[in-house]
Amino acid sequence: MKTILVLGADGYLGWPTCMYFSKKGYQVIAIDNYYKKNLLLKENVTPLFNVPTLVQRAKLWNKLTGLEIKVKIADLKNINTLNDVFTKKMKFNWCVNNSYRIPDSVIHFAEQPSAPYSIKSNETANDTLLNNLIVTNNTIFAIKNYSPKSHLVKLGTMGEYGTPNIDIEEGWININHKNRSEKFLFPRQASSIYHTSKIMDTDLIWFAVRNWNLIATDLMQGPVYGVQTNESKIDKKLMTTFHYDEIFGTVLNRFLIQGMCNYPLTVYGNGSQTRGYINISDTIKCIDVSISNPPKKGNLQIHNQITETFTVNELALKVKKAYKEFGINVKIKKRTNPRNEATNHYYNPKYQSLKKLGLKPTLLSQNILTEMINELLIYKDKINKKQIFKGVNW
Amino acid sequence: MKTILVLGADGYLGWPTCMYFSKKGYQVIAIDNYYKKNLLLKENVTPLFNVPTLVQRAKLWNKLTGLEIKVKIADLKNINTLNDVFTKKMKFNWCVNNSYRIPDSVIHFAEQPSAPYSIKSNETANDTLLNNLIVTNNTIFAIKNYSPKSHLVKLGTMGEYGTPNIDIEEGWININHKNRSEKFLFPRQASSIYHTSKIMDTDLIWFAVRNWNLIATDLMQGPVYGVQTNESKIDKKLMTTFHYDEIFGTVLNRFLIQGMCNYPLTVYGNGSQTRGYINISDTIKCIDVSISNPPKKGNLQIHNQITETFTVNELALKVKKAYKEFGINVKIKKRTNPRNEATNHYYNPKYQSLKKLGLKPTLLSQNILTEMINELLIYKDKINKKQIFKGVNW
Repeated sequence: MKTILVLGADGYLGWPTCMYFSKKGYQVIAIDNYYKKNLLLKENVTPLFNVPTLVQRAKLWNKLTGLEIKVKIADLKNINTLNDVFTKKMKFNWCVNNSYRIPDSVIHFAEQPSAPYSIKSNETANDTLLNNLIVTNNTIFAIKNYSPKSHLVKLGTMGEYGTPNIDIEEGWININHKNRSEKFLFPRQASSIYHTSKIMDTDLIWFAVRNWNLIATDLMQGPVYGVQTNESKIDKKLMTTFHYDEIFGTVLNRFLIQGMCNYPLTVYGNGSQTRGYINISDTIKCIDVSISNPPKKGNLQIHNQITETFTVNELALKVKKAYKEFGINVKIKKRTNPRNEATNHYYNPKYQSLKKLGLKPTLLSQNILTEMINELLIYKDKINKKQIFKGVNW
Repeated sequence: MKTILVLGADGYLGWPTCMYFSKKGYQVIAIDNYYKKNLLLKENVTPLFNVPTLVQRAKLWNKLTGLEIKVKIADLKNINTLNDVFTKKMKFNWCVNNSYRIPDSVIHFAEQPSAPYSIKSNETANDTLLNNLIVTNNTIFAIKNYSPKSHLVKLGTMGEYGTPNIDIEEGWININHKNRSEKFLFPRQASSIYHTSKIMDTDLIWFAVRNWNLIATDLMQGPVYGVQTNESKIDKKLMTTFHYDEIFGTVLNRFLIQGMCNYPLTVYGNGSQTRGYINISDTIKCIDVSISNPPKKGNLQIHNQITETFTVNELALKVKKAYKEFGINVKIKKRTNPRNEATNHYYNPKYQSLKKLGLKPTLLSQNILTEMINELLIYKDKINKKQIFKGVNW
């Protein structure tokens, strides 16, 4: 049985990942300090429904499945947190038994994940840079110092690449220049400080990997959508947190709530912006595939973690169409884009590598949308329309 | 009369820059919090001679020249420091009169500058990332919020590029890929966390410049050497700090002290590593040229700030030859390279742009070396051999 350490285990992706690997028979160690929950409080926004604490969820998971997810509530910016894990000194906040093995894989979600938050002010930009860089650096040093064979699986973002006028390769590019050539990280230029902090993470991890012969996979993920995963279907209290506000919600999740409460879908600009998207269940499968296929020592493996691309207009129309079956007429309203991003741009990202390793994508069908709407409808009365759009400008 | 704000004004480059622009008729505001002096204390290394405090030096400068350098001792990681400058609320620690104008140019030296320090431990790596990124980000936000026409002149490093197998252009490259093309930042991959923090600075500044239409110049500087500048020749107490220890000294400055005290020159590896170098007087001239030639709004101008390239072996032999005139027989000792860097690598950086703008380089002649040796000889008895090489491994 292999051990997996999940950093940022309380988040939208962190908690479903813990359950998935626990179910698959891994020993799972989950760490979080409620940093994001605290950000939501500061920004005065709430998720669609409250989820129990990480300890409560782990206890419930244990009660319902007999499986154990060891939980530690601790700040990963504090160097001691990860050093304690890797020197086997960790005292958990909850576990069935305190013994554990050094993690074989470290899944790093522990980042400030919001572009609008990152760009709001000098303070929130600093917070984003500080949290994301220091947690990433501590993770690197803990692995380097105590367990250099552990595989670091880091969540990056497709946003690191921006929207260049050339095809986006999977992380790397061979550049021919004046009759010589070299392989480089694919050039990155992002459209927010959050996305830029992820470029910095990639730079830092690539430095560490080649300098210290570490093993790392950087997953360039597109915006994730989805409500349930197989494991959360056991009990509603196991559902992951769901954000529909402008700051922490991803676009399709936001559109679904907007459609449900008769709020015109907030299409920014002309809606021609194209991005790659992925279902939350596929996110976890991609991580599974990555863990099962680590690169060699000293190599940074990069996958583009998306399954299909859409324009914002296409997403809005899909949501409109899905709600029609429910007898709901969804309006779409184009707004002045609060973001500074290109419209009518070239966009041709490659995303074959995870499929080659075995990913079978769940694409965004009308059935999937209908299923999500059904999962969300029971929370309709809980929607707070005021937090849907506040207008954080870039 | 234009106003120049110098961040990191107490450093090896900061102080000579303050005097130079003061002499040229600029209003100069100098900020530092002795962060680097404090690092030296923590690392238990001392410069070749003690320099007076920034306030004492500004007072002496005023006494000897009648010119004023306004001094503030404050931490630039604190957002208020720069906001106070740009909202004209700054209370100086020393000045002739407290009135000042909003800076036309901001010269940003306020960074942890040592590669070995950055790589020593998790703590020193975090300190490097945190200091360098937060100060840069605060500088960007202060300019964006209060004075978007001010020109940010940032000291980067040639080390950002590493040693790729293709020619190194001045900051930017056009990439042709599958029949399409795009202009990108020249790909960067550095060989320390310090150098990687400078890549991150570049990423952050480029984001800010294109997103908020700022005006910035990023100077990719090579290792600097030199003791005196024209302004410091007025009085020894105006000389800038000089480091010869392994952690904070640059290679040629270290070799000069090693040769002087009969310590075999510490050539790392086979000595074939090639880098671009620059005289401290030219550093200041490059900044002057950059300030006089700002890019347009929304553009990040990048210059490679070196004047010639040498292998480490060539530098060692030049030092050996220079000391021969003084009757000193310098030994050279190749050591196992404590750094992880390529040897026998391709290295062809471009560095024409500053010359096109008017820089007349001072190249590393035997006369220059003789002059430096003469300037340093009076401190010969102060050399502490024990701090020359401690062996910080990568």
